[in-house]
Amino acid sequence: MHQIFEPTLLLNKSICKANIKRMAERVKSWNGDFRPHFKTHQSAEVAEWFREQDVERITVSSFKMAFYFAQNGWKDITVAITATKLHAGIINELAAKINLHIIVEDEHTIVELENLLQHPVGLFIKVDTGYHRTGVDADDLVKIKKLLNGLKEAKKLIFIGFLTHAGNTYRTRSKEQLTETVELSLHRFLALKTFLKDQFPLMQLSWGDTPSCSTYNNFYGIDEFRPGNFVFYDDMQVKIGACQIRDVAVCMAAPVLAVHPQRNEIVVHAGAVHLSKERLELEDGTTSYGSVVKMNGLVWDVQQVIGPVMSLSQEHGIISVAKQFINTIKPGDLVGVIPVHSCLTANLMKKFLCTDGNFIEMMK
Amino acid sequence: MHQIFEPTLLLNKSICKANIKRMAERVKSWNGDFRPHFKTHQSAEVAEWFREQDVERITVSSFKMAFYFAQNGWKDITVAITATKLHAGIINELAAKINLHIIVEDEHTIVELENLLQHPVGLFIKVDTGYHRTGVDADDLVKIKKLLNGLKEAKKLIFIGFLTHAGNTYRTRSKEQLTETVELSLHRFLALKTFLKDQFPLMQLSWGDTPSCSTYNNFYGIDEFRPGNFVFYDDMQVKIGACQIRDVAVCMAAPVLAVHPQRNEIVVHAGAVHLSKERLELEDGTTSYGSVVKMNGLVWDVQQVIGPVMSLSQEHGIISVAKQFINTIKPGDLVGVIPVHSCLTANLMKKFLCTDGNFIEMMK
Repeated sequence: MHQIFEPTLLLNKSICKANIKRMAERVKSWNGDFRPHFKTHQSAEVAEWFREQDVERITVSSFKMAFYFAQNGWKDITVAITATKLHAGIINELAAKINLHIIVEDEHTIVELENLLQHPVGLFIKVDTGYHRTGVDADDLVKIKKLLNGLKEAKKLIFIGFLTHAGNTYRTRSKEQLTETVELSLHRFLALKTFLKDQFPLMQLSWGDTPSCSTYNNFYGIDEFRPGNFVFYDDMQVKIGACQIRDVAVCMAAPVLAVHPQRNEIVVHAGAVHLSKERLELEDGTTSYGSVVKMNGLVWDVQQVIGPVMSLSQEHGIISVAKQFINTIKPGDLVGVIPVHSCLTANLMKKFLCTDGNFIEMMK
Repeated sequence: MHQIFEPTLLLNKSICKANIKRMAERVKSWNGDFRPHFKTHQSAEVAEWFREQDVERITVSSFKMAFYFAQNGWKDITVAITATKLHAGIINELAAKINLHIIVEDEHTIVELENLLQHPVGLFIKVDTGYHRTGVDADDLVKIKKLLNGLKEAKKLIFIGFLTHAGNTYRTRSKEQLTETVELSLHRFLALKTFLKDQFPLMQLSWGDTPSCSTYNNFYGIDEFRPGNFVFYDDMQVKIGACQIRDVAVCMAAPVLAVHPQRNEIVVHAGAVHLSKERLELEDGTTSYGSVVKMNGLVWDVQQVIGPVMSLSQEHGIISVAKQFINTIKPGDLVGVIPVHSCLTANLMKKFLCTDGNFIEMMK
């Protein structure tokens, strides 16, 4: 066993592979195309585990990440962040090598990119189905027609269809809320197909998000699915109801630095630069930056929850410890922290220690 | 000029050097030793700018960081995170090469480390003067005496003095609150010297934190100062009153991805993986993840504040834009984001683009 003396992100390969297999089978059961989002693991080695489920097409969240996976043998990539004229150079570089898809939501950008691009790329129009981050409002048919008109004569920008990320599912905290949110967004999204199917019979609808893809099943009319977080899941997905705590494939091994029995707190080396400051509001009004569990070697035990991380500074986490545990923990022990948001935690750590003792690297 | 197509952390070298010089002069005016904390910049190149102010002794926040700066020629380092038996190996490796100081707060750890260490190291007892994170309560003289007794016979652990980080200053939002907090913590801290000066006439008191070191002046009795954030400052320090917005030396150049005039919002590529999710509660009850300003080339203009970053997801920031600016911004423009917490932002970005066009690397 490694002597862990600093925060170390553990990865349980069996849980992770089971998560991948389960999602691949779900998407297959909907007759959908699986184009998983790789923003969570950002790792060429974890990516290979998707090939075992016949995945060949992927999604990434930045052009930099597209570049990394293209270098690692992935030939069909959707960059699911809005492209602008600033990206023309990197699009040209990528589209010379791989089958690249981009997303756009602005008519001037269409003109600018059509002029600047050297190779054809697939184009999705980004649609807002209720999350209100990026995208054309799904009901704004005037703007959508303007964009489609701009694409009619385009030779470099090949219209594929519409893409949405129903990130509003992340705000739900019950199965009922989640279903309602998914159905409202789906309804808006599918209306585009009804409206445009005569003009664009091959038009594709691409749908995101781990909460809906983990729990909902009635996706008739959606062609492609891009969930990402499910590869690891996390404490937020547990709270949303998208998974159980036993499905979370990553956990931070955190050295205990100080024990304060008088206030039922321990302080660990695992701070904002390890976990990220993503937080959950708990039912009792307090805040959690992660759920802390007991560890045994490199294995974390989700049956023994010590308490929540109640505050974070750069390097430190302060944990509110259930009374029965406070005298069982000493400085120099290790505890496990189930992260609130595994995408952000993995992005900070840049590597994983597998529970079999091997390290897995991520994109630098 | 670089074609920026992804979030890029800009560093203004003149502002940064002025911040270093000003703090070095302040510490000198108190007849104190300056041992700046390098956790904010984490960069061997920025570190050299401190040598111009005769700095030879430094503070870091992890053993990994100590290793990096030791490799880059720094010979006297305090690792300002509580050490435990887990760290014996890395302490031995470091103490073989440099003058190392560690901090401890637990009597069992003293016994364990004394057994495991191969070389003498300087030891500070970590004291809690009101922040309530780590450290022995400054009033807990029973425990402090127990620790000092444990050190009496030690050959490897050389008692130097007491160290505190009055991080409670970060919770203040006015000069009056800040002064009151500093004086309360200082009072508790200085009492240790009064109490123990006969037994330990050479005892040192080491004090932290940018808010107090930037604004307070009456530090009589404190021997050493370890502020860190001041090298860049940030939006939080502006809100605390520790600096002006013109003193902030870093700013994120963020590509504009989408403009939504109907809701006075723009969406930029600059998300939680670039800025961190550190946030400020504004006076009107809203939340800010950074202040957004206009840019001109690689120069950001703090006179033209567009609005706050009101929410962040992994790659995206949503900015609430003042009405007079909404029609002046287009997709493909760049705006600047003054980060809430520059330590966390720099840690995520791992390099700086100087406004003179050169990149500066950080610890990997």
